[in-house]
Amino acid sequence: MTKTGAQAEGGEGPLAIICGGGSLPNAVAKAVTERGRPVILLALRGFADVEQIAGFPHHWIGIGKYGVFRRIIERHGCRDIVFIGSVVRPGLRHLEFDWATLMLVPRLMGLFRGGDNHLLSGLLRILEQDGFRVLGAHEVAPEITVPEGCLGRFAPSDRDRSDIVRGMDLIAAIGPFDVGQAVVVANHHVLAVEGIEGTDQMLARIADLRRAKRIRMPQGTGVLVKAPKPQQDRRVDLPSFGPHTIDGIVQAGLAGIAILAGETVIAEPARVSDAADRAGVFVVGLPSSQRGTST
Amino acid sequence: MTKTGAQAEGGEGPLAIICGGGSLPNAVAKAVTERGRPVILLALRGFADVEQIAGFPHHWIGIGKYGVFRRIIERHGCRDIVFIGSVVRPGLRHLEFDWATLMLVPRLMGLFRGGDNHLLSGLLRILEQDGFRVLGAHEVAPEITVPEGCLGRFAPSDRDRSDIVRGMDLIAAIGPFDVGQAVVVANHHVLAVEGIEGTDQMLARIADLRRAKRIRMPQGTGVLVKAPKPQQDRRVDLPSFGPHTIDGIVQAGLAGIAILAGETVIAEPARVSDAADRAGVFVVGLPSSQRGTST
Repeated sequence: MTKTGAQAEGGEGPLAIICGGGSLPNAVAKAVTERGRPVILLALRGFADVEQIAGFPHHWIGIGKYGVFRRIIERHGCRDIVFIGSVVRPGLRHLEFDWATLMLVPRLMGLFRGGDNHLLSGLLRILEQDGFRVLGAHEVAPEITVPEGCLGRFAPSDRDRSDIVRGMDLIAAIGPFDVGQAVVVANHHVLAVEGIEGTDQMLARIADLRRAKRIRMPQGTGVLVKAPKPQQDRRVDLPSFGPHTIDGIVQAGLAGIAILAGETVIAEPARVSDAADRAGVFVVGLPSSQRGTST
Repeated sequence: MTKTGAQAEGGEGPLAIICGGGSLPNAVAKAVTERGRPVILLALRGFADVEQIAGFPHHWIGIGKYGVFRRIIERHGCRDIVFIGSVVRPGLRHLEFDWATLMLVPRLMGLFRGGDNHLLSGLLRILEQDGFRVLGAHEVAPEITVPEGCLGRFAPSDRDRSDIVRGMDLIAAIGPFDVGQAVVVANHHVLAVEGIEGTDQMLARIADLRRAKRIRMPQGTGVLVKAPKPQQDRRVDLPSFGPHTIDGIVQAGLAGIAILAGETVIAEPARVSDAADRAGVFVVGLPSSQRGTST
């Protein structure tokens, strides 16, 4: 379903950017504007950060306000839509519906049964049925993705590289289950697999296990390996990381992070690189040829 | 490497039971004694529980005291050895070595690099090289394993059964990575995969995510699915669960637990069944034909 590059660049009118939390909505808006295309930010109430949104034309909308959303983007003549920024899946009882959303309820209900990828892919299908085109943030703003190679001064050792291969293979094996996009491997030993708790909590768990002496490997052992699931729709579920991930890695006593390049977004790359260099950890972007194979 | 039933029952002399923590060493000693075979318990200092050991002939030994261990079991004429009970892998600097263990250091060092299964399988090879026979607790005391079928009053619903199939398939997929033996699946959605933190901490994580409203499914949704890895050596790494697992399931708001029968040990089955019935959760033992298939 992903558009080809040619289609993705052929948009007319401003790009509608639906903004969750964090600094990425700002980075995408900036990159798209610099390429000469106007943007309209739809800031999700309760998720988007005021200071990240303020510098661009924007509207605040509540989740569930599909009618409001459609009126705004149609008024601005938007056809292309990008989702970016963090959102936590809301419970139905916390949503305030408008009439247009109520009309969608039958279509939405079926979507609440699967994983996040399933839910968001379904929302995407609804937007497409309504004539909109949903693009990936990595398509409209490739400069926000992780480049191949080392980001800071440090590089993975041979042992780290072997852990990275094992991690990529494990991620490939669990891909069909629509579960975590990250694992921690140390000395060929799988320490953690990400579930719905997310990468930050998984790293915090490793830090706890170290404090409890349940992990006794020396500091600087092990790698956080992160890759989007092969069948994942990048337009709605693009893995991302930023400076706080470096903090998490340091707390967990790992040697570094390996991420599939191009398909993973990096928030505030300069701060990530500085933080990694200060902490002595590596950040490496892997070419897609190093995606794992299921054993 | 697992012995056949005929070999396993052909032992002579008392059975040496190396005892970690919890009530299982007591249950195994009781079952073996009732079958008419004498036992000698080797209680691991820092792990075994005094009250579980007291009723049987026993010796306390420190981990790393391989020389002491050999002298004791040879004096008693033991040839067969069983490992049972919980141990957390100790750090090398917390071990006190005797001379015989020091001689093993070169053999042991290589073993500290892999997962638990790798380490314990290696210890087992060393014992076999020294002429001992290591049996599985499930072989000498099959009555301690989970039987097929429902243990208490409650049974899995159709939805639970579908979650169980998905969980078993996921466990099969991650089997080659020597990682967790348990997952949590709710409504076809994988919530957690066990890493080195263990089942209890994984369940506590689900409870936390519920409290934080990051899981919003109704109470009584989801299943803990637990199965030993297919290539796991049951003699050194037999999955087990007991009454505290039921507490964990209740805290996590799950509907029940599904476990591969015969190859998983159950501590205090009467208390498990009572606790499950009181809490309204199911405990089901699955035949090995329901072991998952990697997709």
